[in-house]
Amino acid sequence: MDKYTMYGKLTALPGKREELSTLLLEASRCLRHVDGCELYIINESVEDPDVIWITEMWRDTEAHAESLHNTEVLAIIQRARPLIATIEPIRLRPLGGIGL
Amino acid sequence: MDKYTMYGKLTALPGKREELSTLLLEASRCLRHVDGCELYIINESVEDPDVIWITEMWRDTEAHAESLHNTEVLAIIQRARPLIATIEPIRLRPLGGIGL
Repeated sequence: MDKYTMYGKLTALPGKREELSTLLLEASRCLRHVDGCELYIINESVEDPDVIWITEMWRDTEAHAESLHNTEVLAIIQRARPLIATIEPIRLRPLGGIGL
Repeated sequence: MDKYTMYGKLTALPGKREELSTLLLEASRCLRHVDGCELYIINESVEDPDVIWITEMWRDTEAHAESLHNTEVLAIIQRARPLIATIEPIRLRPLGGIGL
């Protein structure tokens, strides 16, 4: 299996998480028809009121790399950027389990 | 939506990650028929050679709580415990996206 998973931890500026998650949900709708996107789930942290985690899984690293050029998503990221304090990506190799 | 997501970060003792991931894949096979388990993916970190992240998503917190009593899974956790240095859970509320 050469699928590619990424968790993206986004810390919003104080009070901006809801606005940010709305934009990310909009981005996920643009990715719905993108080839190779298997998971793109927007989650909010239960413990930290400023934090969002995105669960991404792609058919392979190439599908993920290609998605970074999606112009609709790029436009949304431009709008989201002023709401974000920090971004921390965690790169993973899925081995198996339920939901692959 | 009241689904429940958890990322579990497991740091294996040095050199024990592969043995640990084999046990976790075995646990995931026990969960395949458990009601309400929607994602249970075992991932290894690309950057850290000792780290495994489990992506879990459950229909609701009750389904997750009930799964903690699964005797087959508990038996596997007993075998896995000596391989684990630390466990850090991250509790999340999924809001939407692809793969829900």
